[in-house]
Amino acid sequence: MTTAPTTTTTHAVPVAPSTGALRPLGLDEVRITGGLWADRQRVNGTATLDHIEGWLEREGWLANYDLAVSGGLVDGRRGREFSDSEVYKYLEALSWEIGRLRAVADAAGGHDAAGEPGSRAGREGDDEADAAASVDRLEARLRAIVARIAAAQEADGYLNTRFGRPGQEPRWSDLEWGHELYCLGHLFQAAVARVRTRPDADDGLVEVARRAADLVCEVFGEGGDERICGHAEVEVGLAELGRALGEPRYLDQARLFVDRHGRGTLADIEWGRSYYQDDVAVRDAEALRGHSVRANYLAAGATDVAVEFDDLELFTALDRQWHRTRERRTYVTGGQGSHHQDEAFGEDWELPSDRAYSETCAGVASVMFSWRLLLANGDSHYADLIERTLFNVIETSPDADGTAFYYANTLHQRVPGAPADPDVVSPRAHSSLRAPWFDVSCCPPNTARTFASLAAYLATADASGVQLHQYAPSIVRTALEGGREVAFEVGTEYPRSGSIVVRMLEDSPEPWQLSLRVPSWAVGAQLSLRPADGELEQHWSAAPGMVSVERAFAAGDEVVLDLPIAPTFVSPDSRVDAVRGCLVVERGPEVFALESVDLAGTPLEASDFADLRVDASAEPVDAGSGAGVVVRIVDARTDAAADVSLVAYHAWAERGPSTMRVWVPAL
Amino acid sequence: MTTAPTTTTTHAVPVAPSTGALRPLGLDEVRITGGLWADRQRVNGTATLDHIEGWLEREGWLANYDLAVSGGLVDGRRGREFSDSEVYKYLEALSWEIGRLRAVADAAGGHDAAGEPGSRAGREGDDEADAAASVDRLEARLRAIVARIAAAQEADGYLNTRFGRPGQEPRWSDLEWGHELYCLGHLFQAAVARVRTRPDADDGLVEVARRAADLVCEVFGEGGDERICGHAEVEVGLAELGRALGEPRYLDQARLFVDRHGRGTLADIEWGRSYYQDDVAVRDAEALRGHSVRANYLAAGATDVAVEFDDLELFTALDRQWHRTRERRTYVTGGQGSHHQDEAFGEDWELPSDRAYSETCAGVASVMFSWRLLLANGDSHYADLIERTLFNVIETSPDADGTAFYYANTLHQRVPGAPADPDVVSPRAHSSLRAPWFDVSCCPPNTARTFASLAAYLATADASGVQLHQYAPSIVRTALEGGREVAFEVGTEYPRSGSIVVRMLEDSPEPWQLSLRVPSWAVGAQLSLRPADGELEQHWSAAPGMVSVERAFAAGDEVVLDLPIAPTFVSPDSRVDAVRGCLVVERGPEVFALESVDLAGTPLEASDFADLRVDASAEPVDAGSGAGVVVRIVDARTDAAADVSLVAYHAWAERGPSTMRVWVPAL
Repeated sequence: MTTAPTTTTTHAVPVAPSTGALRPLGLDEVRITGGLWADRQRVNGTATLDHIEGWLEREGWLANYDLAVSGGLVDGRRGREFSDSEVYKYLEALSWEIGRLRAVADAAGGHDAAGEPGSRAGREGDDEADAAASVDRLEARLRAIVARIAAAQEADGYLNTRFGRPGQEPRWSDLEWGHELYCLGHLFQAAVARVRTRPDADDGLVEVARRAADLVCEVFGEGGDERICGHAEVEVGLAELGRALGEPRYLDQARLFVDRHGRGTLADIEWGRSYYQDDVAVRDAEALRGHSVRANYLAAGATDVAVEFDDLELFTALDRQWHRTRERRTYVTGGQGSHHQDEAFGEDWELPSDRAYSETCAGVASVMFSWRLLLANGDSHYADLIERTLFNVIETSPDADGTAFYYANTLHQRVPGAPADPDVVSPRAHSSLRAPWFDVSCCPPNTARTFASLAAYLATADASGVQLHQYAPSIVRTALEGGREVAFEVGTEYPRSGSIVVRMLEDSPEPWQLSLRVPSWAVGAQLSLRPADGELEQHWSAAPGMVSVERAFAAGDEVVLDLPIAPTFVSPDSRVDAVRGCLVVERGPEVFALESVDLAGTPLEASDFADLRVDASAEPVDAGSGAGVVVRIVDARTDAAADVSLVAYHAWAERGPSTMRVWVPAL
Repeated sequence: MTTAPTTTTTHAVPVAPSTGALRPLGLDEVRITGGLWADRQRVNGTATLDHIEGWLEREGWLANYDLAVSGGLVDGRRGREFSDSEVYKYLEALSWEIGRLRAVADAAGGHDAAGEPGSRAGREGDDEADAAASVDRLEARLRAIVARIAAAQEADGYLNTRFGRPGQEPRWSDLEWGHELYCLGHLFQAAVARVRTRPDADDGLVEVARRAADLVCEVFGEGGDERICGHAEVEVGLAELGRALGEPRYLDQARLFVDRHGRGTLADIEWGRSYYQDDVAVRDAEALRGHSVRANYLAAGATDVAVEFDDLELFTALDRQWHRTRERRTYVTGGQGSHHQDEAFGEDWELPSDRAYSETCAGVASVMFSWRLLLANGDSHYADLIERTLFNVIETSPDADGTAFYYANTLHQRVPGAPADPDVVSPRAHSSLRAPWFDVSCCPPNTARTFASLAAYLATADASGVQLHQYAPSIVRTALEGGREVAFEVGTEYPRSGSIVVRMLEDSPEPWQLSLRVPSWAVGAQLSLRPADGELEQHWSAAPGMVSVERAFAAGDEVVLDLPIAPTFVSPDSRVDAVRGCLVVERGPEVFALESVDLAGTPLEASDFADLRVDASAEPVDAGSGAGVVVRIVDARTDAAADVSLVAYHAWAERGPSTMRVWVPAL
């Protein structure tokens, strides 16, 4: 760790610490080429982005910027006080998607295009043909929106459609609820995405962000206003903008904001200052608490500050909080947030299935926090939680079509929900089936930016080699320190199967180390090396954690990780009251659920869902390709029984109104 | 049932149906003379009433009426939009307390004063001496407040400090959240209390209520505004005012309001129209739902309407809802409301201990609903729930001193709460220990009016005799139909002991029937008759329900009910997920709790509360007079074990910060 950032990175990553155990590989280095995540990225890059922009226009949240210019904002502004932030998250998603598509287009003319007929990259043909056209289309959209935003920015850099004009409340007059700095934090993250994917762009987004950041430093800098924003986000935004632009002032300002939490500068409220993490200094807290999105955004920004300022005490505190939160305040899905009322963490072990809030945005924010810790110290536990959260929270939010979303992600649906009208804004979090848009619509663009940048969370590098943290069909091309070129393809049906085949695409003149994560659930994993030159295969057993092979790899060499993926019952911690006596079925990183639609045609069709029990004496059975997991379900009242398919939790509620439970009482 | 009320009652009761199975006995007929409820009434009538009036003045909620006269209301008004209602509930409490004290004073000069040295009434000496002075003091207070209110009433009868003046929002412009009709409903209940305890009073309260009620009928009557109030209460207030004043128009208006629920005249909101019971017609609903206080107030008013208009369909619907709500949406304490967010019922079986809202006011409202059903059809199940709610919700709210209150009544406190500052207003419901006053302070005056009128919920009469529903040391004097005088004293240590001795104070020339409730938990109860004349004692076994003895009782005859009161483990319904695998200890009507302060000095003192289990193989043991119940508690992590006293739930949190749980996981 150093005391200030010394380099700017040109790789397309959302997080680029100046120091740390691992360097993240960017969208220019990692491409997802198939499987569940490629499907999701395709839907996200088309249907979801179209959907979001449509609703931003329809709800007038984009037009607010035009009204700022025309003078009609005081009477005509629409949307909640934080609606600007959704525009910025959408810009961030657009920026990552443009970066992703350019990498696809580049690959079409590069190494992967031909000559490797056995490569799964061959499946990308259509995408590659369309990628360049899509880039142009999305570029035009992004530029049009940036122009509208830039026109609304005030002379001194201030930018917010809700505050500061005659007839509006004054700037910074409601830091508790006004979300001005929060919105700017998202603007900064959008600018980071832009500068890291198109450093040559002349659209002005980065300049808008820089001017706003300068104003923030001026107003809230040393000797200035000493308050914080009620919704953390500006910290993580400023820190990364500082890294991306090589501007230490922004990192200094991020540090100031982090350090000011816990001083009680915000008003006390019904739920206490813990709601916005203004109750206790970040370095003194024992666990994440309060609003679960705010808590994770703050922790992510604080991790950036700890890393950049070599603040080991702060880092240790954050790591302690992560572990306690993971153990005691996180659902089996990776979801966080036990309270609907204040969208907040509960106390330790307070994890009700039926009132799980598990906000989608908390999942996104949790990944941000975990990823930063992982880059700092390389511990595979963080990637374990990232994987769990990606599969069971973030992927649960959007439907297969990418145009309806869960805001909250319950683990127990007691009554069949009514389908949401695809043409109507839903109240926050209260749709029982996925809804197209929300009054508070933070989640759709938050998933969009995450999926568009997902490749940047798969792999890292260090001096010795490359680490693979998440498994998807993908191609990795990067240069290690000293200019050593590394290129390999990952072939896998994961998480349907546990076989992960890493096939080298080029000869490496010097040895390097390939490291693979063995998830915590994967007891009995095996690692194999299958040399291309006919040498004997080698096999090693691999315990959970990181497992490595070092070699001067040759093109065609294969490293194979076999993870024991099989459905299994998992018991809850005995201290979690809400699911005592229940079991959950997991298969690899996926959590499964009992959904009432799967009872149709069985003797349990007419059973009261509350009477159903899982027969723990009958092991869960994998139902085969594409299907779920089958367990024995018994009606405790009638003794009727049937073998019932469980559905992957992220795929539930796609077949009409239903009831559902993740934790099922054991017989 | 008849189509309109034909008589006004002169008895001091909060509810006087014109027809029904049972006639309630009033404060002029029943006096509580000792035991837990007498202690509570004494504290309530002194410390609690003083406390409430002090805070009403301090917070400016009383001064709002003065500002209405002086013209300073627009700028100077203080308190939430419904603060007027707290003043009216306080007036209602004052009225009942005056009625109660007058009965005590009357008794001092009447039958009970002397000549019965063995009578527990002898203990009342001090009270009786003070009662007349206290009446004068409270009368003066009441009159002073009524004068301030009357001065603020507008010429056409409108009365609300928040709406309708120049600079304020117009009258009836926010029926969803404005609470204007809700406030008036409480005004009407206060007037009912006044006219039934001092029909001769000339203070003007009844006239103020009558003028306001006339305006409501004019504005919202047939052909007028067809909306309802977002917070039910005006229905039950209008119905009783109609009964008390013999004014059928008010009953007609109550019926209109009840029938208008479910038509969607109120705006749809985040939580749905079920929040204010505007989703489904009252007669079509299957269970209470939405905001639990609103739901019960509405159900109480709807029961009045069903009774007065002989609407059997409506009555049957309400009875169905009561049973389903009791079975599936009510905590073991009698508490109702599973959601903090919307203070609402959850779905069937959604009863989390740690997020139990169980609002004190919902308990009060539930008693109101149950009592009306009981008067209509005489079923003892209603009195069972009333008893459970009185002991474990309403009595739990105030502390022993009567000056700090629980708003919500959790069944599981995970972290020790910080003591509330006795000088500071607490945010709604979020004090972890009892607090003196709340921003939304509905609960303190709601308990006060309930305790002051509690004697009116103990007994009823019908053509054949008297029914005792709740047991406390008390004296009952009433006249049955045909003028037959009945007088008896109830001697009991209930609920510490299960022996209830009813001793006749006068000879009855004609036979009449004394009926006693055998609670649903009291399997193995026995009833005995001990004639004063030396006849042989008779004994009967008594199943849960009502048990009766008919006789031309002589002075000194005793009827003794022996209820098998002993601590016992109770298992939850298997469909309640939140407490699966747990047990609760009940003793008679009281629910017990494991409180961390009782671990001091045991081998479990340092245990993590989340690891504690109750050893179900060791029966709970009664610890003897005044003490709690002892169970065997084991630390599941360390195997340390100890015999630990459980505390009566209503008495928890009186010994400083603690953790607590009502349902304890079984070993």
